Amino acid sequence: MDWIYKAIPQPDTQARQQALHRQSLLTKPAGSLGLLEAVAVRLASMQGRDRPSIEQIWVSVFAADHGVAAESVSAFPQAVTLAMVKNFIDGGAAVNVLSRCVGAALEIVDVGLASEPNCAGLISARAGSGTANFSKQAAMSEAQLERAVQAGKEAVIRAVQHHADLFIGGEMGIANTTSASAVACALLNLSTTELTGAGTGLKKAQIEHKTRIVQAALHKHRSRLVSPVKILQFLGGFEIAALVGAYIHAGQLRLPVLVDGFIATVAAVAAVKLNPGVKEWLFFAHCSNEKGHRRLLQILRVTPLLDLSMRLGEGSGALAAVPVMLMACRLHNEMATFEDARVPNR
Amino acid sequence: MDWIYKAIPQPDTQARQQALHRQSLLTKPAGSLGLLEAVAVRLASMQGRDRPSIEQIWVSVFAADHGVAAESVSAFPQAVTLAMVKNFIDGGAAVNVLSRCVGAALEIVDVGLASEPNCAGLISARAGSGTANFSKQAAMSEAQLERAVQAGKEAVIRAVQHHADLFIGGEMGIANTTSASAVACALLNLSTTELTGAGTGLKKAQIEHKTRIVQAALHKHRSRLVSPVKILQFLGGFEIAALVGAYIHAGQLRLPVLVDGFIATVAAVAAVKLNPGVKEWLFFAHCSNEKGHRRLLQILRVTPLLDLSMRLGEGSGALAAVPVMLMACRLHNEMATFEDARVPNR
Repeated sequence: MDWIYKAIPQPDTQARQQALHRQSLLTKPAGSLGLLEAVAVRLASMQGRDRPSIEQIWVSVFAADHGVAAESVSAFPQAVTLAMVKNFIDGGAAVNVLSRCVGAALEIVDVGLASEPNCAGLISARAGSGTANFSKQAAMSEAQLERAVQAGKEAVIRAVQHHADLFIGGEMGIANTTSASAVACALLNLSTTELTGAGTGLKKAQIEHKTRIVQAALHKHRSRLVSPVKILQFLGGFEIAALVGAYIHAGQLRLPVLVDGFIATVAAVAAVKLNPGVKEWLFFAHCSNEKGHRRLLQILRVTPLLDLSMRLGEGSGALAAVPVMLMACRLHNEMATFEDARVPNR
Repeated sequence: MDWIYKAIPQPDTQARQQALHRQSLLTKPAGSLGLLEAVAVRLASMQGRDRPSIEQIWVSVFAADHGVAAESVSAFPQAVTLAMVKNFIDGGAAVNVLSRCVGAALEIVDVGLASEPNCAGLISARAGSGTANFSKQAAMSEAQLERAVQAGKEAVIRAVQHHADLFIGGEMGIANTTSASAVACALLNLSTTELTGAGTGLKKAQIEHKTRIVQAALHKHRSRLVSPVKILQFLGGFEIAALVGAYIHAGQLRLPVLVDGFIATVAAVAAVKLNPGVKEWLFFAHCSNEKGHRRLLQILRVTPLLDLSMRLGEGSGALAAVPVMLMACRLHNEMATFEDARVPNR
């Protein structure tokens, strides 16, 4: 798994300067397009050209089960993971609708459902039959972690083969906010109450129970949580590990990433801890309603594009933000300059 | 101008209930699509059907000049209003690019440029050759106000003839944030410092000067500012009045509106003061970076869809939010239900 530490290139500073210059020529008050300007300039810098564009969006949804679901930490039964995977394959979920809206290519990757489904169209990259219950033991072995991280890398390789210029990673896995909260608390040394939320819709007492489960696991494994890799192994999920691998390899291949919600942001935090250069390749799509997401975005010092009180996962928040990126590119590329339009500048 | 007080119908409560019910059946945790759910349900209610959709978006940009520009309240010279109108006609401005992005029909309406341009494709509905300088006298006569409000009504009639199902009003007019700030302060009895901002890019000392101009005008005309109509007449702009007329008539014709930025929101405040039922027909697209906009949205008790630090006007913020509405509709209409997808519900 040494590849995850390999150097990540910096975006192109010259293209950034050219794009900034172009923004200053366009027929609008300087800065008046706000984040749309920032997105266009960052993307230009990533793409190494002064006119950025997004032609092909790639979405990989990583699905896996979680042993900790046995601790009654989710409002839905574990069987929902597989049922939703089938829904993804059949095209009926939010991520399908939104992928169609923006013309994104969508693949679903089994990185460790509880049992291997017979499901045509599902990509198999299984690291196990669900993780172990991390309130009792390590969520996964080292070898399983390596397999799950590799599954993310392989998804990015498929995206690049498909000529994608934007990568979105989604996730599905009943109980995965529990795992994500535990991972984030361990990575950032934050309190469990700060980062443990309602997930798919827990009530107050259930959130308190979930928080205690996370707290106890952090305590149980505290001597082993000595690195981001160990934190992922002891507390993570296969889909979270896959997102970590995907983000890092996307950065290594200069492929811009649009990070989805709470769970994806936890994976982004882990990726940045493992290989800080990856942060330059990440856009953050939205601030979700899941407790702790805003805090994570603040800690990362990033500004999300949307704040629509979504909390669905699957990649849905990232896909909702795609039009903002597309519009940012088109404004940057298509607007007239003051000179062309003979508009007096200030 | 009595038509502005005519009754505005209520959205359909039965369609709202049906849409809410449908949302509860879709394969996602209840409420997890956040504002996207709220948009779909409101739109269903406005359209009187449980499956809302937006097929044709209509944008009218109202352009006019402002006598108060003589008081050095803008970072750009007055000639920019006309130059930008030509840019709109030539397709080079932000509003053009964004209209193309979402397939919106776009028209540009001269409601009172300083001089009548010879400009093919520009719709003429002139209420005058710019307003008078409201720091010296009433911005416009009663007859001019009536003409400008009527221009907005006529734009909505064109939108409806074009089978539009979403109306966006944009504005262009150098110095129009000065007029909008004055109108908003008078309508809401707020302090000028709270609602006077940088407009197209004033520095601190210039904002202070602009604030003093607004303050002095409010003081000078204080005995005449006895109604929303008088406030618009003494302090308004032709394009602001046109937006007021457009919003009210859109409500009267059951045409949903997507309100743009600071100036459009001031027009919305005036419209709601004149005919409160209009509020049910307004979506608020974004919170801009113009000082006071967030406050106005709070006073209206509305949640904007986007918060991208834009401050351009023209309708650009509203157009940027259109994909959110389109996605909301498609999610509502196309997602599978728990039953169809055989996903266990909680």
